[in-house]
Amino acid sequence: MVAMLNRVLRRIKPTSSDMQRLERVVTQVMNKVRRVARSRKVKTEPMLVGSAARGTWLRSERELDIFLLFDPEMPRAELERQGLAIAREVAGPSGREHYAEHPYVRMEFEGFQVDLVPCYRIDDPRKLKSAVDRTPHHQRYVQQRLTPQLADQVLLTKQFLRGIGVYGAEARIQGFSGYLSELLVIHYGSFQQLVENAARWKPGIVIDIERVYPSEAEPRVLFERQPLVVVDPVDPKRNVAAAVSMRSFAIFVLACREFLKEPREQFFFPNSPPSLTQASLLNQLKRRGTTLCCLWFRHNDLPEDVIYPQLRKTERSISNEVVQAGFEILRSDVWADSRNAAVLVELSISRLPPVQIRPGPQIPVDATDFLREYSGSRRRLAGPYVDEAGRVVCEVRRVETDGVRCLKRVISEHRGFGKHVAESIEAGRYRLLVGREITKAMRNRSFREFLADYLDKRLPWYR
Amino acid sequence: MVAMLNRVLRRIKPTSSDMQRLERVVTQVMNKVRRVARSRKVKTEPMLVGSAARGTWLRSERELDIFLLFDPEMPRAELERQGLAIAREVAGPSGREHYAEHPYVRMEFEGFQVDLVPCYRIDDPRKLKSAVDRTPHHQRYVQQRLTPQLADQVLLTKQFLRGIGVYGAEARIQGFSGYLSELLVIHYGSFQQLVENAARWKPGIVIDIERVYPSEAEPRVLFERQPLVVVDPVDPKRNVAAAVSMRSFAIFVLACREFLKEPREQFFFPNSPPSLTQASLLNQLKRRGTTLCCLWFRHNDLPEDVIYPQLRKTERSISNEVVQAGFEILRSDVWADSRNAAVLVELSISRLPPVQIRPGPQIPVDATDFLREYSGSRRRLAGPYVDEAGRVVCEVRRVETDGVRCLKRVISEHRGFGKHVAESIEAGRYRLLVGREITKAMRNRSFREFLADYLDKRLPWYR
Repeated sequence: MVAMLNRVLRRIKPTSSDMQRLERVVTQVMNKVRRVARSRKVKTEPMLVGSAARGTWLRSERELDIFLLFDPEMPRAELERQGLAIAREVAGPSGREHYAEHPYVRMEFEGFQVDLVPCYRIDDPRKLKSAVDRTPHHQRYVQQRLTPQLADQVLLTKQFLRGIGVYGAEARIQGFSGYLSELLVIHYGSFQQLVENAARWKPGIVIDIERVYPSEAEPRVLFERQPLVVVDPVDPKRNVAAAVSMRSFAIFVLACREFLKEPREQFFFPNSPPSLTQASLLNQLKRRGTTLCCLWFRHNDLPEDVIYPQLRKTERSISNEVVQAGFEILRSDVWADSRNAAVLVELSISRLPPVQIRPGPQIPVDATDFLREYSGSRRRLAGPYVDEAGRVVCEVRRVETDGVRCLKRVISEHRGFGKHVAESIEAGRYRLLVGREITKAMRNRSFREFLADYLDKRLPWYR
Repeated sequence: MVAMLNRVLRRIKPTSSDMQRLERVVTQVMNKVRRVARSRKVKTEPMLVGSAARGTWLRSERELDIFLLFDPEMPRAELERQGLAIAREVAGPSGREHYAEHPYVRMEFEGFQVDLVPCYRIDDPRKLKSAVDRTPHHQRYVQQRLTPQLADQVLLTKQFLRGIGVYGAEARIQGFSGYLSELLVIHYGSFQQLVENAARWKPGIVIDIERVYPSEAEPRVLFERQPLVVVDPVDPKRNVAAAVSMRSFAIFVLACREFLKEPREQFFFPNSPPSLTQASLLNQLKRRGTTLCCLWFRHNDLPEDVIYPQLRKTERSISNEVVQAGFEILRSDVWADSRNAAVLVELSISRLPPVQIRPGPQIPVDATDFLREYSGSRRRLAGPYVDEAGRVVCEVRRVETDGVRCLKRVISEHRGFGKHVAESIEAGRYRLLVGREITKAMRNRSFREFLADYLDKRLPWYR
């Protein structure tokens, strides 16, 4: 196993020329921040945070976080105004404003994506003014504990998480952040120790590195229904693993178990799904025999972390309503790039007979209203009668017998859809592609890859 | 209400000429029993029991029960031999042997169906030798308490139960016996009182007329999961309402509530379902859009109480397996006459796509076996992957996509079918009629009526 891990490490660890390039970029941006601040007569200090600052930076990563630290006496509005002004000037025309809990600016610089994030410089982490103020404290906590050996273990961990598809706390992934990876390695001591322990994790597990809580009882309540709880050493009220979904949690645990049985490099570097042609899509649809539907629409350049939760909300609403109407969904998924988005819904049962059971109250519950509603209804086909369980039942004419038509109605009503999704639908900026029509969306390469992955969906290390 | 009940009573109460006819039949049969016993030198005494003996006999009823009482010293085998010999001689060529807990002879006599039942004459009901010995005690208990006024109330109760379709403890009905109707009237004092009380019954209600048990706790445990418990005053270990199914219970409670709101004669004398022609069957099938299937077979003259439980068992087995395979059943039912039987299964979903979800274990449960089975399987279409709930899932090629073909397989395997049903299938004495093929069975009038009722199924008072 050690030889293999070393092989992996050689592929992912930045070389000295990588490091030099990174340092050059960092120095240039930090100097520019200082220069702009001086010229605007604003007191602020740039600080490099994140993996680049801790030696836990993967060679393939191209993201940098530079925080602009302000005096805590400055009012919030003032900080945001000044901070953004400096960041915008530093960024120049490539800068785009983003918004997490607070606004920040994202710029492209020599092949790197650099986030410039204004925040308060607060010494006591218990007195944080907002979530971004916490990051410098994370920085210090990790830096004090990460030896170069441990940093390598973090690199392995991050690449493993990436390989199995659960690296990143963003809405699209709902997985493990870099900081979380670092804490797990600090806690368990090595990648292998982490894997051996995680193979035995159960949902609801609590990891409290600094033993802030006397028992698991309190964090269990505090972070109820979160599959993984890693108490933030810097802010014990926060779960560092809050973004980790049950799905990502389960994939990680499963991957750890399988990796221990057979440690293969594929866990770190999985194969891609086979590329998808129009012909192979049609062939797959035929083999599956389902009705694959794709709600396709444009969005106005919304950030991933905004559009993905809305797509998932839309996916849930559609599912609920379509299943409520009696149809069956085999699987569904969502996708977005910077301009387009899609909700994929695969109907396994898309045709229903015109008769439908309407279950009423079970004796001894009063059935008066039910009987009044259905006994004389024009939709009645049979009933009211009583079934084996003592439930009053009617059989009525079904309104919708066609799943695609039902889907069209649900979309046109767009109840409970994400806000921007609903807006696109109201504006008519959408199409519902059914079956072979989906080939039309395949010109979009990212969507085509998403679709290839959807149709040949499997755990990456099984590819 | 009183006027209406009197109108009903006039229609159902035997006239004096009905009574004379009945008495003549009873006298003739009893005398014949005495004569045959004397000639065979057997000491036995005939006793008229049941409704005819208690004045709770509906004009339309044509059943008589005559018990042959034997000395309790006589051995069981001797009693059965002597009793049956006498009964057979009395019955002549129309006699047919039947079997409840013990054998008895059923004969046709002047338009009546007379059961001749040998049993022991036991004075202390706590020392009964078998279930049939209990009947003479029921007879005495009811006779001592039923005034002519109460007897009329029993007639109303029985006709009400018959009208709503739950009169009779036999397997086909699973409803209220005559003795149970009598006890309920004795307990509540009148038909109307019974209806008012039953409208508020909840499943699990205990009626203990003689207050044998200090509380409901003991009978609740003793008669667990029986919706209605009426403690037998003659034998407190017995629930007189043991045959009453949840369905029959619920129909009765519902009918009582609806009757109180609007007391109509229809509850006593419901309309028949419209008669069914071949054309109207086809029309109904089209309107429902389901796949109606009928397993039709011959049985060798099995009594109703034998064939019905077997048909229900078969119905349950078929349902379980077909639903297990992914199809959906809207409704099913069973039917039998003296020679033929049918299990009706109505598929609402009879076509499934070739792809099927195979759910595996949910993390943290071990998934090794599941992954081994499916990851390399030739039936695999997608997966293994992990769903939102943290469950490992595969998508595989479905073996059966056609519901009727599935039904054919289930029938040919006949696992868990009733014994005689399975025998008929093994002997090839069956057909599976699908959709319009069912018209072939419509020459059988009883089946045609059953089918009419099935297709226009509703509570009788709603017809």
